[in-house]
Amino acid sequence: MASVLPASNSCMRADRKAYVGLVFPSAPQYSPTLSPCVRKGFVHVKNPHLDSMEEDILYHLDLGTKTHDLPAMFGDVKFVCVGGSPNRMKAFALFMHKELELEGGGEDVKDICAGTDRYCMYKTGPVLSISHGMGIPSISIMLHELIKLLHHARCCDVTIIRIGTSGGIGIVPGTVVITDTAVDSFFKPQFEQVILDNIVTRSTELDKDLAEELLNCSKEISNFPTLIGHTMCTYDFYEGQGRLDGALCSFSREKKLDYLKRAYRAGVRNIEMESTVFAAMCGLCGLKVPAAVVCVTLLDRLDCDQINLPHDVLVEYQQRPQLLISKFIKQQLGLHDQTL
Amino acid sequence: MASVLPASNSCMRADRKAYVGLVFPSAPQYSPTLSPCVRKGFVHVKNPHLDSMEEDILYHLDLGTKTHDLPAMFGDVKFVCVGGSPNRMKAFALFMHKELELEGGGEDVKDICAGTDRYCMYKTGPVLSISHGMGIPSISIMLHELIKLLHHARCCDVTIIRIGTSGGIGIVPGTVVITDTAVDSFFKPQFEQVILDNIVTRSTELDKDLAEELLNCSKEISNFPTLIGHTMCTYDFYEGQGRLDGALCSFSREKKLDYLKRAYRAGVRNIEMESTVFAAMCGLCGLKVPAAVVCVTLLDRLDCDQINLPHDVLVEYQQRPQLLISKFIKQQLGLHDQTL
Repeated sequence: MASVLPASNSCMRADRKAYVGLVFPSAPQYSPTLSPCVRKGFVHVKNPHLDSMEEDILYHLDLGTKTHDLPAMFGDVKFVCVGGSPNRMKAFALFMHKELELEGGGEDVKDICAGTDRYCMYKTGPVLSISHGMGIPSISIMLHELIKLLHHARCCDVTIIRIGTSGGIGIVPGTVVITDTAVDSFFKPQFEQVILDNIVTRSTELDKDLAEELLNCSKEISNFPTLIGHTMCTYDFYEGQGRLDGALCSFSREKKLDYLKRAYRAGVRNIEMESTVFAAMCGLCGLKVPAAVVCVTLLDRLDCDQINLPHDVLVEYQQRPQLLISKFIKQQLGLHDQTL
Repeated sequence: MASVLPASNSCMRADRKAYVGLVFPSAPQYSPTLSPCVRKGFVHVKNPHLDSMEEDILYHLDLGTKTHDLPAMFGDVKFVCVGGSPNRMKAFALFMHKELELEGGGEDVKDICAGTDRYCMYKTGPVLSISHGMGIPSISIMLHELIKLLHHARCCDVTIIRIGTSGGIGIVPGTVVITDTAVDSFFKPQFEQVILDNIVTRSTELDKDLAEELLNCSKEISNFPTLIGHTMCTYDFYEGQGRLDGALCSFSREKKLDYLKRAYRAGVRNIEMESTVFAAMCGLCGLKVPAAVVCVTLLDRLDCDQINLPHDVLVEYQQRPQLLISKFIKQQLGLHDQTL
């Protein structure tokens, strides 16, 4: 497994001071030579038109190339974590702030996109935490603008991880599923993108090495089950996921169970609403970064449709992917077992 | 054109006190006999499984049938206005609070869904204002739970309107487009819903009478252009709408313009990301309510892709659908020209 840390990389060296220096002035455990390293390079976009634009307004992030010094604001970003809920992504940023022992209190962790209510964004050291709302179109808009942001900021060697919630199939609620391949409603590992009025099919495979590394990382956290499996991504929470409790339902409980059992046999262990386009865009956009999807399951869909967990259990479940990704990030930064 | 006010309807009569009584103790102009009336009846759902559920948790609204007295909270709702942005829907609620001359200050207009950050919801008299995020999946989740909410609350004679922003085609920015028919990326008046692993095609026609009534209403507001046209609904803001400024773009400016001009010739006057599923669900779900989509255009896509309006212009444009719908609601309530 290739580490996300470069062996020798001037942009990394310059950046390091910005966050690691604050935590460990002598950086006793943080050394780029600790891990086997492959330089994955700068974040690129695949759009020949962008070069000719005088200004790029990232409208839904309320940022722009003329109004903001994006390299100064984001040039040291190494980990981008995205999730649906604004509150959850703020909580993750505050958690990372504490785990990385960064200077200042939680009040210093401010929403960079405060000028818009479409998404929220927090930066804690090398970690960017962004909300993406619910569903493929919503995360797609954010990803287009995020990828352009990382490109404009001349970021390099970035790892991007979606941390979310999902419905499980045939596994105990609270299980964390690391996605190896995102599949559509027909269990196919593909994402159909409409471009003008053509349909283009894109691959939805994710980085297998990163998934394995995350699974290994989870073994050091004993208090919740984690597994690798396929994740089914749907356009709808109710009819599209076979729920019997929507405003519309035209199928029987037997048809629902038949569908979910077929999904299980096809390797699907959880269902959510963003993973296919996330995998497709990270794989295609020229990011050249490892990408992962890590979701906790809130219920077993073979048992029920409604999410009726007590509030404290729900909160604890939602923290599980955060705990795992925090541990992973600290390992990658050479901060092994400092605080976990 | 049928009015949304019932000629004689006990649920309306009981409700009237709740809001109209506050504004006009003698109700000089508010009378159900002012408009031709058709009782459209209670809001229904099309799901035989719901009756057997002991409790219905509307998870993404943080409401439920056991935890909340939904008929008491929402029984008098007559107008539901939905839009993407939480801030904009709060602004609309505050505006309606003022326009309906309801008692109390803006601080009394509180987010009913404050326990979740997925959507926000405000109630001002008979008007419910709800955010739905961006894209078909996001609005679809909200609509399922909203329709169930209106059903559980035993609401009757409800009109539902989406007020949003969009990109225009061949029309001056700032124009308000009232949708007659929502079409997909292929200019077809249909919405493809995946149910389990079948694709079901649904109609996306909207209420023509309501659209005409809204257009007539707009004629009394002189300061912005309004027209009726088709609205194209896409799954993507960048590649799917022919933008040249995304992180990914594989087509030329000529191909983009060819696509948008073909859309124009097919009757499309604006592009957004929610109208097909909105039309399909309102048409099918048993709501039996008139539904409309009213969006302001922020740019002409034949001229540009980026939204670079000055902030004050953007704010004024976004208020235009709100002004129109406020006028419409007041007309329907018999409050003709009280404050506009």
